[in-house]
Amino acid sequence: MSLIVQKFGGTSVKNTERIFNVARIVTETYAAGNDVIVVVSAQGDTTDDLIEKAAEINDQPSKREMDVLLSTGEQISIALLAMAIEKLGYPVKSLTGWQAGFITDSTHGNSRIKRIDTERMENEINKKNIVIVAGFQGINRYDDITTLGRGGSDTSAVAIAAAMHASLCQIYTDVDGVYTADPRHVKTAQKLDEITFDEMLELATLGAQVLHNRSVEMAKKYAVNLEVLSSLNRVPGTKVKEAIKVEKMLIKGVTHDDNVARISVVGVPDQPGIAFKLFSLLGQNKVNVDIILQSIGRDNTKDISFTVSRAHKDLVMSLLTDYVHSIGGKDILCDDNISKVSIVGAGMQTHAGVAAKMFEALMEANINIQMISTSEIKISVLIDKKDAEKAVSVVHDAFIN
Amino acid sequence: MSLIVQKFGGTSVKNTERIFNVARIVTETYAAGNDVIVVVSAQGDTTDDLIEKAAEINDQPSKREMDVLLSTGEQISIALLAMAIEKLGYPVKSLTGWQAGFITDSTHGNSRIKRIDTERMENEINKKNIVIVAGFQGINRYDDITTLGRGGSDTSAVAIAAAMHASLCQIYTDVDGVYTADPRHVKTAQKLDEITFDEMLELATLGAQVLHNRSVEMAKKYAVNLEVLSSLNRVPGTKVKEAIKVEKMLIKGVTHDDNVARISVVGVPDQPGIAFKLFSLLGQNKVNVDIILQSIGRDNTKDISFTVSRAHKDLVMSLLTDYVHSIGGKDILCDDNISKVSIVGAGMQTHAGVAAKMFEALMEANINIQMISTSEIKISVLIDKKDAEKAVSVVHDAFIN
Repeated sequence: MSLIVQKFGGTSVKNTERIFNVARIVTETYAAGNDVIVVVSAQGDTTDDLIEKAAEINDQPSKREMDVLLSTGEQISIALLAMAIEKLGYPVKSLTGWQAGFITDSTHGNSRIKRIDTERMENEINKKNIVIVAGFQGINRYDDITTLGRGGSDTSAVAIAAAMHASLCQIYTDVDGVYTADPRHVKTAQKLDEITFDEMLELATLGAQVLHNRSVEMAKKYAVNLEVLSSLNRVPGTKVKEAIKVEKMLIKGVTHDDNVARISVVGVPDQPGIAFKLFSLLGQNKVNVDIILQSIGRDNTKDISFTVSRAHKDLVMSLLTDYVHSIGGKDILCDDNISKVSIVGAGMQTHAGVAAKMFEALMEANINIQMISTSEIKISVLIDKKDAEKAVSVVHDAFIN
Repeated sequence: MSLIVQKFGGTSVKNTERIFNVARIVTETYAAGNDVIVVVSAQGDTTDDLIEKAAEINDQPSKREMDVLLSTGEQISIALLAMAIEKLGYPVKSLTGWQAGFITDSTHGNSRIKRIDTERMENEINKKNIVIVAGFQGINRYDDITTLGRGGSDTSAVAIAAAMHASLCQIYTDVDGVYTADPRHVKTAQKLDEITFDEMLELATLGAQVLHNRSVEMAKKYAVNLEVLSSLNRVPGTKVKEAIKVEKMLIKGVTHDDNVARISVVGVPDQPGIAFKLFSLLGQNKVNVDIILQSIGRDNTKDISFTVSRAHKDLVMSLLTDYVHSIGGKDILCDDNISKVSIVGAGMQTHAGVAAKMFEALMEANINIQMISTSEIKISVLIDKKDAEKAVSVVHDAFIN
């Protein structure tokens, strides 16, 4: 007897037909002798519809009331899925976030899970009920409803798997696993059977959009076995684990991320503390900086370039323009006509020449590299946005196949 | 400083415009120096839409899961109304049924309030917040979500007014008070300034559909001052009280109820216990019997006639047919082509001739009376359904104007 946690996103429960599809997956898992806890998101466009309703009334509603509103989406899903499972003749109980024991911090709109009081879920599992839990939501210590923000339902599922010591946490999505590149654009993309947490983290950060980072980080921290698979195409998915047996592939994926802007601070004095002041100012304003590159200029000045997400571009420019001039800097430039192309793979730690091979592929395609950033298992380059898809394709073909 | 509870039904919050209308009523009451707790129902057709969603999936869903589903309707309303009040610049907190402390019995779909833990509402009121509470819902001792059934939001409002010792409980509806007859059919119908709980109870039971019985019963039990008024037409409504100062009117209202069937058990032996056995059988099957009339027949037999709601007609016939024959009864008849016309008024206790005046009005209109039932403050007659509206009109004109 093992406990399996299954998570289904909004498109997997968007209508009656899809709900019954999910109900069949769940009840087959249960009928095979497993205990099952299911986490569901709000149906299809429900969350967007609710946001629109709110916007009609108040363009700046409090986050507290948005959480009260949005949490109804998942509550509708759990009830409907429970009814479908009842219809198939299986014992089932739905639980909202607070009923399932999700206690979060006090932040609204993007709260963090502090703990799960698992007593209720354990009781229902002991009574041999299939348990359906509303993802994305919890309550804080004031008994106010909170939501977990983007990717919240993935995080809910992994948190339950960790707290209940589940043997497997299956994340069902509309793709059937993690691919070496976006299969919509790269025809030769291959599905991975296995991937490590670290590799998955790099891919998630880089915009692979299969699993959200917070859930992968949590899975890594609590050693939860994850599997990403399709709710429609019933084939094995991709397993995400701490370590995988054989490093069959040197790199696991090639991605590109267009949601990036490059800021260049030009001609600032070459003195100690300049970079610290610059980036602490950004940090105080909750701007995450990605790639940083510093170069020596002329006449005792230096240039500092870095990338931020495009949403932060205007904020960064307004924060830094006066500051840069106040310290005698020459100019501050911004370019968002760029794309970040990355390769990820734990294998590159033990293989020399990976970077060279990537740069060679780009050179042969006549693609200019603007910035480079590397980690133990990742190499990212910044290039012109117009070259992004071509770059993914040539780099992918250089490593995979 | 006094506490006022205001309840708004689904049509009062059906769209953004209506929600702001409610927000203005609430904030004006608050700005006038009152503490305000607001109870809202689900928007317009939300509940019906949710029922339809459920029906697509399961024609016999568990009541537990229906409650999980339906309770989202009020939760959406409280969040939206709170956002509108925020927009108007007032401090506000929305609370779901469980957050507001509504503890019910374990029944789903039609549960009874056992108590309200008022601590949270008191805290918010002490912080000078306007409090918005989701009507119709609570939790049972298993922490499962329950709903109160028809008229549940009225009951929620009165229960809060009782528990929080409010000075007034205002029930806002789409009519501007309680009328002496249905103003859509009787042009001379008049709005009442005041009415007693007992009169209101008789009118509610008789189908006046302004206030639900459970809420009036609770208001009477805990001496809650009620007022029924319109959320659109800002004029004084009807006050419902324990006793009213001057009995200006002999009767308070004339109603008719078509949802009634008459069952006649003909020619049963005139022995002790027959009526007891008949009605205890119906009671065991949860059939409420209204008017009962017993007459002596011939040859030591008697006839027993009674009325039930039309929904129970088939059940009663199937329960009694065999039974009546087993005790030697001659026949059992059913007629649902009838209507019950009633007059209600505490004044009739001290005035002779009220019944006679009613019967005279019917006679002059050539309307035949089939059965009669009286209580201290009510007289009901059973007549042909085709005569119902005419009967209401002539009786109304005999007493009022």
